[in-house]
Amino acid sequence: MSFDRPRLARVALSRLVEPGHREVSELVASVGPEAALRDVRSGRISTRLRNQVSARLEAGDPEAQAAADLERCARLGGRLVTPEDPEWPSALDDLVQICAPDDPHVYPPLCLWVRGPHDLGEVCNRAVAIVGTRAPTQYGTHMATELAYGLADRRWTVVSGGAYGIDAAAHRGALAAGGVTVVVLACGVDVAYPVGHVGLFDRVAEEGLLISEWPPGMRPQRHRFLVRNRVIAALAAGTVVVEAAQRSGAKATARRAAELDRTLMAVPGPATSALSTGPHQLIRELRAHLVTSVADVLDEVGRLGEALELSDVDDQDWLDGLGKETALVLDAMPLRRSVTVNAVAAGAGLSAGQVRRILPELQLRGLIGEDDSGYRLTDDGRARLTGSSRTRSRGAEGSPRSAAS
Amino acid sequence: MSFDRPRLARVALSRLVEPGHREVSELVASVGPEAALRDVRSGRISTRLRNQVSARLEAGDPEAQAAADLERCARLGGRLVTPEDPEWPSALDDLVQICAPDDPHVYPPLCLWVRGPHDLGEVCNRAVAIVGTRAPTQYGTHMATELAYGLADRRWTVVSGGAYGIDAAAHRGALAAGGVTVVVLACGVDVAYPVGHVGLFDRVAEEGLLISEWPPGMRPQRHRFLVRNRVIAALAAGTVVVEAAQRSGAKATARRAAELDRTLMAVPGPATSALSTGPHQLIRELRAHLVTSVADVLDEVGRLGEALELSDVDDQDWLDGLGKETALVLDAMPLRRSVTVNAVAAGAGLSAGQVRRILPELQLRGLIGEDDSGYRLTDDGRARLTGSSRTRSRGAEGSPRSAAS
Repeated sequence: MSFDRPRLARVALSRLVEPGHREVSELVASVGPEAALRDVRSGRISTRLRNQVSARLEAGDPEAQAAADLERCARLGGRLVTPEDPEWPSALDDLVQICAPDDPHVYPPLCLWVRGPHDLGEVCNRAVAIVGTRAPTQYGTHMATELAYGLADRRWTVVSGGAYGIDAAAHRGALAAGGVTVVVLACGVDVAYPVGHVGLFDRVAEEGLLISEWPPGMRPQRHRFLVRNRVIAALAAGTVVVEAAQRSGAKATARRAAELDRTLMAVPGPATSALSTGPHQLIRELRAHLVTSVADVLDEVGRLGEALELSDVDDQDWLDGLGKETALVLDAMPLRRSVTVNAVAAGAGLSAGQVRRILPELQLRGLIGEDDSGYRLTDDGRARLTGSSRTRSRGAEGSPRSAAS
Repeated sequence: MSFDRPRLARVALSRLVEPGHREVSELVASVGPEAALRDVRSGRISTRLRNQVSARLEAGDPEAQAAADLERCARLGGRLVTPEDPEWPSALDDLVQICAPDDPHVYPPLCLWVRGPHDLGEVCNRAVAIVGTRAPTQYGTHMATELAYGLADRRWTVVSGGAYGIDAAAHRGALAAGGVTVVVLACGVDVAYPVGHVGLFDRVAEEGLLISEWPPGMRPQRHRFLVRNRVIAALAAGTVVVEAAQRSGAKATARRAAELDRTLMAVPGPATSALSTGPHQLIRELRAHLVTSVADVLDEVGRLGEALELSDVDDQDWLDGLGKETALVLDAMPLRRSVTVNAVAAGAGLSAGQVRRILPELQLRGLIGEDDSGYRLTDDGRARLTGSSRTRSRGAEGSPRSAAS
């Protein structure tokens, strides 16, 4: 197997230091990954960085290890995604804006390991993160599941960290709606951590995306979860916190989201529950928006998402042959429910009259059907909306990836 | 019994139209109550107002009825308080600022009927309103009780509407702390509505204040509760909403508080409860502050209250003989709990060192004692703080009132 040199250099560098590393990131930005790797190997770097990488450099040739990582990933059906690839989510580049001297691991990832049948950049165009405690109450689990289901049903991607509790409820809720969910891991994309989530991660690898900054096989370490959280916050247009103790990783993710000017949201709960403390503090102190329903969440992030999508419609080929308003109507259909004309109109931002004029065209094309409760996507319509976004490859040709249809 | 003419005129006018009446209020403001009553009786008023008062004018001589009202009130041990009395809470005058053409009953009361041993203006200098549903959950009842207890323990007056549910929990919580609570009724101060609150109102008449814009004997009517709500909102520095349905009187009170630039607060609850809808909407739409504890409430209204109090200290005689800082320390003591030096310092806005220097003086005077948990008020100290504010009469000499010591 042959790999292009800049990709190999990025993987090698990401093996030598922990993700988000300031000096390495700035070096890559100024001289490119290959020259940066040469500088690191030859010691033309700060004493501090030299000390940080010396043990790992002695452990073996970093490029050989990188090549082994890439082969291992390809065997898993995974792929490497770098900033040079069309699939790279540009939202991650915003992390550059929040780097501060006392916060040494905040830079964007050098590369991401990805497993799953979707274009990462694409699904993150409309993404909401849902995070919270690993030991939720029934109420918290219920709220995370409901929000994730409803967002996925409106074809928003649900991003979370794959942990027990709220994270898992969010991933499962999105999958239950037939939607897309992204698990941002703090270990290799072939490592089941926590081990009880083997089944969940297998399903996400089939229907969603597993992503990580750490190469296949890497075990999680305590500090890596905090480093990882910045990626969750950056990928999503907004972050919703559901149940979190006063000190928690979810609150750390929330602070990152606020720093990144993402929409910060929190689900309230009974003041008598210690797990309401986190969300309530975020509302009081970080001015998080209080949300209790999918409608509330879409109120906060929806306009942004819809606006992005509208501007995308012109140059998108996946709705080719459909006029802009027709595309908006198709786009406003939930994946699995029937809806009324008024609901479609609200979702599409069109009048009920416009929607009524457009629906017959979509019915003629076999994309939408009618039943007692209103209009719903046909299998063809659903395939058009989801399948085509799955097959629409943005990946660089040289990158190993599995494109499912 | 003889009554001065302007007071009699105010009572007569308040019998002829419902409280907050625009035209009558403006007439009183421009020509005074006696001339206003003459104008109303002689028909030198708008056709609309003439139609409104005609039936009541025919029913009997309004001044004779007013005199009968005053006698009845005096027999109850109650009193009339008018804007001319030192006891009048000037906060009510803010209602003039929010009058709008489509909102005809918003003006300040023409007079208030009062039962209870406190100076109304005094106790409203540090007052928080707690309002909510008449059919709360255990959670709502618990939160209203706890907040009211804690506020009363910090010598904040708790204002509410005397209804079943959250209102009652608030009044009872304040009484349990040995504090002051004000019931703002929509009927006469001798009418028990709801009837199940006979016992509660009797206790409030002994230890707190029952107040109303309607003369003794008057029954409540549906629309009167909404008219009454503006008085609750105006009297308190802030209003806390605990459990309220989407449409509710508590939300109406909250809107008044916001219009009046009072601090609006709401207690969150489980999103799955319909009674959380009101508080959550207030937080989302009216930017109510989310509060879950007494500390949260004091964070929002405390500074205002403390500031008022500080400026009051100079001309207050109830702490005579004490220096200003000594008075602040005494004032920061909770009524019934022991506290640490640090807690007193935080409450008084002084350093722990200052408090430590001042405490011996208060101990020598027998106002503060020490126990295992820290410092606490002695019976004498409590009497000095509460008793003296009760006996400090601001009432006009001519007004019938019961001053308890």
